[in-house]
Amino acid sequence: MDNLEIIGQNAKEASYALAKLSADDKNKVLKKAAKALVENKDKIIKANEEDLAKAKENGIKGALLDRLTLNEKRIKSIAEGLEQIAQLEDPIGEVISMWKRPNGITIGKKRVPIGVIGIIYEARPNVTVDVFGLCLKSGNASILRGGKEAINSNIALVEILQDVLKECEVPKEAIQLIKDTNRETAVKLMKLNKYLDLLIPRGGAGLIQAVIQNSTVPVIETGVGNCHIYVDESGDINKAVAITLNAKTSRPGVCNAAESLLVHKDIADKFLPKMYEKFKEMNVEVRGDERVKEIIPEVINATDDDWSTEYLDYIIAVKVVDSVDEAISHINTYGTKHSEAIVTENYSNAQKFLDEVDAAAVYVNASTRFTDGFEFGFGAEIGISTQKLHARGPMGLKELTSTKYVIYGDGQIRE
Amino acid sequence: MDNLEIIGQNAKEASYALAKLSADDKNKVLKKAAKALVENKDKIIKANEEDLAKAKENGIKGALLDRLTLNEKRIKSIAEGLEQIAQLEDPIGEVISMWKRPNGITIGKKRVPIGVIGIIYEARPNVTVDVFGLCLKSGNASILRGGKEAINSNIALVEILQDVLKECEVPKEAIQLIKDTNRETAVKLMKLNKYLDLLIPRGGAGLIQAVIQNSTVPVIETGVGNCHIYVDESGDINKAVAITLNAKTSRPGVCNAAESLLVHKDIADKFLPKMYEKFKEMNVEVRGDERVKEIIPEVINATDDDWSTEYLDYIIAVKVVDSVDEAISHINTYGTKHSEAIVTENYSNAQKFLDEVDAAAVYVNASTRFTDGFEFGFGAEIGISTQKLHARGPMGLKELTSTKYVIYGDGQIRE
Repeated sequence: MDNLEIIGQNAKEASYALAKLSADDKNKVLKKAAKALVENKDKIIKANEEDLAKAKENGIKGALLDRLTLNEKRIKSIAEGLEQIAQLEDPIGEVISMWKRPNGITIGKKRVPIGVIGIIYEARPNVTVDVFGLCLKSGNASILRGGKEAINSNIALVEILQDVLKECEVPKEAIQLIKDTNRETAVKLMKLNKYLDLLIPRGGAGLIQAVIQNSTVPVIETGVGNCHIYVDESGDINKAVAITLNAKTSRPGVCNAAESLLVHKDIADKFLPKMYEKFKEMNVEVRGDERVKEIIPEVINATDDDWSTEYLDYIIAVKVVDSVDEAISHINTYGTKHSEAIVTENYSNAQKFLDEVDAAAVYVNASTRFTDGFEFGFGAEIGISTQKLHARGPMGLKELTSTKYVIYGDGQIRE
Repeated sequence: MDNLEIIGQNAKEASYALAKLSADDKNKVLKKAAKALVENKDKIIKANEEDLAKAKENGIKGALLDRLTLNEKRIKSIAEGLEQIAQLEDPIGEVISMWKRPNGITIGKKRVPIGVIGIIYEARPNVTVDVFGLCLKSGNASILRGGKEAINSNIALVEILQDVLKECEVPKEAIQLIKDTNRETAVKLMKLNKYLDLLIPRGGAGLIQAVIQNSTVPVIETGVGNCHIYVDESGDINKAVAITLNAKTSRPGVCNAAESLLVHKDIADKFLPKMYEKFKEMNVEVRGDERVKEIIPEVINATDDDWSTEYLDYIIAVKVVDSVDEAISHINTYGTKHSEAIVTENYSNAQKFLDEVDAAAVYVNASTRFTDGFEFGFGAEIGISTQKLHARGPMGLKELTSTKYVIYGDGQIRE
C-alpha cells in the first residue's frame, strides 16, 4: 500500500533540490536517462510483455493495446524525446520583468518551478518518461499515477530513471510512481493539497472529468476538442477543401481534429459538393442539417447531439449558417474552447472571428491540427489546456513554471 | 430563490459583450458609476443601516461591524477607487508575443478576459464595488456572493451599478449579486463549471478552505500569511529592528504582517534585547524558544503551534537559529508561501534566501508589508495569491486576464 503522505513529503523535499539544479545538471540527467533506457531495453520489454499478456487476457485490443506496447524502436524514440528536452532552453531563473519603486525597492518577477506536479494518465507508458523529462527540465518533482494495465512497464521505467537520478546525485524522488492503481489511491492523490501544487490529467474525457470533480488540488483541464471549421462566404474554396480535409482526416483520433463544419449559405452550393467528393474518397461519414441535405440529399440527418460530439473518428457534422455571427455563436455554444478556424478572404470577418471566438487557438486560413507544442515551436508538450487559468493552449516547459517576486531593499519600511 | 443556471448563462453572455468593449467604453462606465454612487449615497446608507441594525441585534461588533459600515466618507472613497481603476491601462488586447513558423503561419499570443469570475466574500460591502471595477476594466463578468450581514447594502450597490450599465448600453449582467446567502447556494456556485471560469474567495482562512474543498471551478487561493523576518548574522541591527517592528506592528491584522522572527545565534545577544525594548513599547507579546529565553528570560514559552500560527495580532513568535539554512528550512516548513524577508549584509546569504525560500514575495532588507498591488505599482489589487498557478503574489488587472493564440495562415495544412 502506497503511503501518499510519505510520497508527498519526499516529492516536496526533492522539489527543493531540483529547484537549485543548473541547466547543465538537468541536461546531464536527461542524457544519461536516454542512454539508460536504451541500455535497459530488455528489462523494459520484459515488463511490458507481462502487461501485454494480462491486457490480452482482459480483452484489450486495437488502439489501446497498441498504445500500451513498447518495443525496441519505441524505446529508442522515447529516449530521443529526452535528448530533445535536453536541447531546449531552461525556463527557470528568467527574470521576466524588473522595476524600481519610488521608495527605492527593486522588484523582480522571476520564473521558478511550480514544485510538485501530479499526473494521472492512462495505459501509455511513453507518458511516464515524457512527464519525467518535462518536469525535471522545468525543475519540478513529479508523482505519477498511470493506468493499471501499464503498471509493470511503468515500474521498470521508473526504476531505471531513479537509478540514473541516484547516479547523478539528484534525489530519486524527483520522480515517483504510485503503485496502487486502485481508484481510492487516485482520489487520495487528488486531495494531497499539502504537497501537490498542480495535478494534470492526461487522457479521455471521462478521466479528465473525474479529476475535475474530485480534486481539491489545482487542476489544469486538458484535451477535449470539439473543433470547427467555418467556411465564410468569401472563403477560397480550394483552401477551404484542403483545410477541412486536413483538419478532419489527417489524424481523426486527436483533440485538434475538426468535428464540425459550418458553411455560409452563399458559398454552400459551390463548396459543399466539392467537399463532399473528398469526404467520400476518405470514407468520412457526413451528418448534415436540413440545408445541407437540400444540396446533398444523401447525407445523414444531423441531430442536436451531433453539434456537441467529439467523434474522434471519420465522421463530421455539417451545418449551413446565415452569417459569421451565427457561426461564432454556434462555436461559442457547442465548442470546447480548444481550436477553431475560419476560411475567409474578408478582412473584417477574419478579425471578428479572431476576436469573438472563445477558444485557446483561433485560426484564419489554416488547419486546427497545428495546435500542438511542437508545431507552435515550443519543442515539447505536456498537454493542451482548454481552461483559462495559468496556461491556455499547448503547454511546453514555460507552462510548467510559476513566478516569484524577489525584492531588493536597503532598509525600507511601509509608512 | 436565485437560479444559478440563469445567472451563469446571463453572465457568460454579458462576458462576450464585455470582451468587445474598448478601454474608452469601460472607463466611461467606471466614471459614471463613481458619480452614481456618490449621488445615491442616501439610498446606500439607508440600506446599510438596515444591515447594521440586524448585525448589532446578532451581537456583531468591533472590527467586523466597522468593516460592514458605510458612511458618506467611505462611499466617496469607494467611488474614488473606481475613478482610479479608470486611470489604469487596459490590459486587454495586448499581444504578448508574436512569431512566424517555418511553414508560414504567424502565431500571436494575445491577452483576453478570463470570462466569468465568481467572488465569495465576507461582510465588506466595499469589496462589491471594488470587484465590479476590477472585473469590468479587465473585461470580465462577475458573480458576487457576499456575506449575509451585508446583503441590503450589496443589493443597493449592485442596483446602482446595474443602472449605470444599462444607461451605458452595457449588459447589466456584467455584475450580478446572488441574493440567497445560504450555504447551499454558495456550494452550487462553486460547482458552476459550465459558466464560471474562475472563483476567488476573499476572506479568512475558514472561508478560503471551504471554497478549496468544495469547488470544482478553478480557484485562486488567497490571503493567509504566516510571514517571517530572518535576521542574519551579518544583518544591520538598526535595519533589522525597524523592519521587524514595521512588519509586525504597522497593521497586525493583515496578511503581509510578520508573525515570526528568526534570529541567527551569533547576532541574537546584541539584537534581541534592542528588539524586545521596541516590542514592549508597542505592547507586542513575545513567545520565544529556549534560546530566546536565555537572552530574555521574561518572554513566554513558544510551543510548536506558535510556528504555524497567523496571529493577526500584537503577538510574535521568536526563534534562534544556527544558520541561514535552518531559517530557510523553518520558513519552508511552517510558512504559507506569502511574504518572507531576510535582513543581511552578506551577499551569498541574500542570494540563497531569495533562491531557496518558497514564497510569493521574498525580500532582502525590506518589510514584508510591501506585498500589495498598490505598493508593487499595479494600481489595484483583487487579492494576494498564495498558490503557484496562474498568479502568485498581488493580483492586479493583468492577473484577471487569460491569453488566446491567434493564428494567421494562408491555407496551411499539417503534413
